[in-house]
Amino acid sequence: MIGIFDSGVGGMTVARAVEQLLPDYPQVYFGDLARAPYGPKSRERIIQYSFDNTKFLLEHGAKIIIIACNSAASVATDLLVEAFPVPFFEVITPAVRQAVETTGSGRIGVIGTLATIRSGVYERKILAEAPTLKVFSAPCPLLVPLVEEGWLDGRETKMILRRYLQPLKLQQVDTLVLGCTHYPLLRELIQPRIGRRVRVIDSSAAVAEELKTFLASTPAVANELRQVGPSRYYVSDITDAARETAARIFGRPIDLIRTDA
Amino acid sequence: MIGIFDSGVGGMTVARAVEQLLPDYPQVYFGDLARAPYGPKSRERIIQYSFDNTKFLLEHGAKIIIIACNSAASVATDLLVEAFPVPFFEVITPAVRQAVETTGSGRIGVIGTLATIRSGVYERKILAEAPTLKVFSAPCPLLVPLVEEGWLDGRETKMILRRYLQPLKLQQVDTLVLGCTHYPLLRELIQPRIGRRVRVIDSSAAVAEELKTFLASTPAVANELRQVGPSRYYVSDITDAARETAARIFGRPIDLIRTDA
Repeated sequence: MIGIFDSGVGGMTVARAVEQLLPDYPQVYFGDLARAPYGPKSRERIIQYSFDNTKFLLEHGAKIIIIACNSAASVATDLLVEAFPVPFFEVITPAVRQAVETTGSGRIGVIGTLATIRSGVYERKILAEAPTLKVFSAPCPLLVPLVEEGWLDGRETKMILRRYLQPLKLQQVDTLVLGCTHYPLLRELIQPRIGRRVRVIDSSAAVAEELKTFLASTPAVANELRQVGPSRYYVSDITDAARETAARIFGRPIDLIRTDA
Repeated sequence: MIGIFDSGVGGMTVARAVEQLLPDYPQVYFGDLARAPYGPKSRERIIQYSFDNTKFLLEHGAKIIIIACNSAASVATDLLVEAFPVPFFEVITPAVRQAVETTGSGRIGVIGTLATIRSGVYERKILAEAPTLKVFSAPCPLLVPLVEEGWLDGRETKMILRRYLQPLKLQQVDTLVLGCTHYPLLRELIQPRIGRRVRVIDSSAAVAEELKTFLASTPAVANELRQVGPSRYYVSDITDAARETAARIFGRPIDLIRTDA
């Protein structure tokens, strides 16, 4: 099975994108709602939680792991790769690659939570691939609460997006990376505010595409993943809000399984 | 010592209010930042965390406990009182009492997080004291993120407050309860938007006043609490943002002690 973890249900935008591109591969998802969100927590805590989540997924049949949480991806990926003998994918690198391939003007914008932007991970990875590019980052800490509030089309949301995106627009970026798995739900509001001609890169879709390419080139792994059995969505805590957000992402009700692990 | 717990540093508005009214009583504070926030979590998880936090405070010298977290106060107080042989105070009841005493028109507004407002705890407690009063509640899920973003005077914050408060204003409440320990930091923006003549009740100040009255009437407990030794502020995770919010609340830097308990 394809293992996917996130601090909450935001990572389900990754699960959904993978399901759409690779419908024959069952998934095991873990959302750590009992300790969510990770963004405001320390590096040390995020690493500990990422190890816990990976162990849980491996115990539940995962043969590869997607880290569908930007905070975990930026601080824990290297340590996880060292510690566990399975392939890891994460939401940052594929979006970075797409952004570098897409930009014409060489000016790339990145939005994310405070923790993600402060970590500088997107900027570092973009410049590692193409040192002459210019990266402009903007932390958008209110967007996750706005998505979870369900204000996906409110006047305040538009105003807040304008305030967050204005500096990137002034920098005339031609590519904008959505560096948080919640943001695809705001994509239709983001596009007109950053500019119709700016290419918006969705990190959830990008990692799904990267996984598809990987499986096409490694049939042995692909066969191992393509087991019988339905996808399972585990969460360490369960609330109505989580059910609603999950249903909003998948466009159908999702059976969330509460676990103590 | 006076024990105080909250999911994060918001409860420090209570610690600060207690310090101002009762400067001779040392405090032991626990902020559960590793699992914060509690509001979006299930009843079961919040109860479990509240028990953990209470045990920690008792092990660290607390002789009374203030539950400085609305979510914990609303679901865990009765169970804690049953389980532990110390006096408990919480942030809801004193504010309810003040609101009931204050209102002239009998129309009271309450604002809080989604979890607090959905629980209906303020409404229930107000009506239990005075069944003829009218209570109007408004969930304000964006206010905690706005405070933590530090947007304490931004145009968006004012606009969002106006949107949240407008329905209560239309209901012509004469008293407004701030049902979340973060909201005292927004008090100066809230007052003009709800109306200059509306009495705003700060639940942090209210619980400090109630504790002061209690100690005046129980000198034995008061003497036991008035030990030598400085106040201590423990947190289960530590970040720059937590340090900044703590300093903003106290008006001075606070030495946060990281603990795994």
